[in-house]
Amino acid sequence: MTIFLIGLGLGDPKDVTVKGLEIIKKCERVYLESYTSILGCPKEELEAFYGRPLIIAERDLVEQGADDILEGADTTDIALLVVGDPFGATTHTDFILRAKEKGIPFKVIHNASIMNAVGCCGLQLYNYGETISIPYWDDSWKPDSFYDKIKQNRQHKMHTLCLLDIKVKEPTLESLMKKKREYMPPRFMSVAEASTQLLAIAKNRNEPEVLNENTLCVGLARVGHDDQTIKVCTLKEMAESDLGGPLHSMVIPSMHLHALEVDYLQLFSENKIEV
Amino acid sequence: MTIFLIGLGLGDPKDVTVKGLEIIKKCERVYLESYTSILGCPKEELEAFYGRPLIIAERDLVEQGADDILEGADTTDIALLVVGDPFGATTHTDFILRAKEKGIPFKVIHNASIMNAVGCCGLQLYNYGETISIPYWDDSWKPDSFYDKIKQNRQHKMHTLCLLDIKVKEPTLESLMKKKREYMPPRFMSVAEASTQLLAIAKNRNEPEVLNENTLCVGLARVGHDDQTIKVCTLKEMAESDLGGPLHSMVIPSMHLHALEVDYLQLFSENKIEV
Repeated sequence: MTIFLIGLGLGDPKDVTVKGLEIIKKCERVYLESYTSILGCPKEELEAFYGRPLIIAERDLVEQGADDILEGADTTDIALLVVGDPFGATTHTDFILRAKEKGIPFKVIHNASIMNAVGCCGLQLYNYGETISIPYWDDSWKPDSFYDKIKQNRQHKMHTLCLLDIKVKEPTLESLMKKKREYMPPRFMSVAEASTQLLAIAKNRNEPEVLNENTLCVGLARVGHDDQTIKVCTLKEMAESDLGGPLHSMVIPSMHLHALEVDYLQLFSENKIEV
Repeated sequence: MTIFLIGLGLGDPKDVTVKGLEIIKKCERVYLESYTSILGCPKEELEAFYGRPLIIAERDLVEQGADDILEGADTTDIALLVVGDPFGATTHTDFILRAKEKGIPFKVIHNASIMNAVGCCGLQLYNYGETISIPYWDDSWKPDSFYDKIKQNRQHKMHTLCLLDIKVKEPTLESLMKKKREYMPPRFMSVAEASTQLLAIAKNRNEPEVLNENTLCVGLARVGHDDQTIKVCTLKEMAESDLGGPLHSMVIPSMHLHALEVDYLQLFSENKIEV
C-alpha cells in the first residue's frame, strides 16, 4: 500500500487540502508530527474535524522510529501529517528514504509553508537568498554564523528569511540523569528576541552597512491565521515590539527594493519607508 | 465585504484547501486567473467540482481591469483563484494594493506553489538562492543575464530554481495589425529546451567551473500531479531528455551538497552521483 506525507498548511484544520482530507479519512493509522513546527489548534480539534484518531509522533518516533510508523505499510495505508509542507524539514526527506529502502510506495500531498507564504509581506519570493535559522542563545552558547549569510544575501541584493527557534519537548537538565524525562515548557522565539540577538551581533561585528539599529526589517506572526500580524520597522523598534503569540518569523529585506515591494511593505509600517 | 485571493495549489481540483473550497462556494463571483501558470485540468472540471461558474480572468483583466473584478466588492464577496499560491506573481501584490486603495478588505488563502513544492527533489529549501526565469529565445533576442545569478548562487553554495517560460495567449504578429486578435498556440518551455539554451550560454561564457556539459541538474515535470516526473542527470543529458507534458522546472544544485541531499537525488538518477 502507501505511506502518505500530508502537509497541513499553516495551522487551521481547514487549511488541509481536499485531497489530503480524503486520504486522512481512509488511512488505517494517522500520525501527527508534533515537533518541526507547531499547530495553531489542539490535537482534539483536528481529530474532530478529520473524524479520525491521531497518533502523536514525537521527534524520536519520526527520526529513530520510522520502523514503527512504517510497520504494516506494505498491506495498509498510513498517513504522517506535517504542519506546513512535508519538505520543510530534512527529517521527512530522511523518512521517505527509509520508506523507499523498505520498498514502500510513498506519496506527498503538498501545502503552503512559511517558505512560500512569507510572500504575504510583499517582498518577491524570487529575490530571497539562503534562509537562516536563529537559535536561542544561552549563557555559554551564542552562535552567530548566520550573520554571514545575512551579509552575503544583502551584498547580493537578496532578502533573508529568518526562521526563529522553537524549543518543544526539551528535557530539563536535571531529568537527563533520571529514568523519567521531564520537559521544559515550550518556548517560541519572538521577533523581539530575534532582533535583540541580531542587534548584539551587529554591535559586535561593527559593519553598520550590513546591519544596524536602523536596518529595516519585517516581523511576521501567525502567518496564514486569522490574526496574522505583520510589522515593518527598524531593527531597534522590532526589538521593542510585541507581535503576540507564536509562531514568529522575520525577514531582513534587501537594500535594493522594487517600487512595488516598497508600496506593499508600506501597508505594515507606521513611518514612511526610505530606500 | 471581502475580496479573497485563493491559491489552488499545483493543478488537481482537489488540491484546493477545505477553507478555500468553502469560500469559493459562498462567493458571489469567482474569477479564475488563467495566465501566471497553467491549470492541470480544464475549467469545466473545476466548475463541476466547485459547483460554481468560473469567470476566466485574462492577463488584461487582472492587470488593467482590477476595477472590473473588484466591482461590488464593498457589498459582496468575490474570489480570485490563482494556480499555486497568490503571492507567486507580482500581479497579485499589485492587485491587493489596488483593493486596499479602494478600502476593500482582502484575505489570502495560501497553498503550495513551485517555490516550496520544489522541495520534492530533496534539495533543502533553505539552501536555495535567487530564483531565475529562463525566457524563450528567438532569432533576435537571446537574453542570458540569468546566467550571472546561477553563477552567484553556485559561488555561494546555493541551489538555483529555474522557472521556465510560458507563452499563453501571445498574439500572432499578423493579428497585431488587425482589430481581432489571433493567438499562437500555447508554449511551455521543457527542461530539454532550457538545458539547450543553458549549454549555449555556457559555451559562450566559457567558465566551465560555473556550468558545463557535465554539470548536474534536476529536471522536474508536473510537480504535485499524479504523473510527477523528476530526473537527475548532466546538463547535456537533460538537453536530450523528454519529461513529457508541462509544466517543467529545473534546478541547478549547489556544488556543495549534504549527504542526505545526494542520497535523495540518487533516487532520480540512473548513474551514481559524484560530488
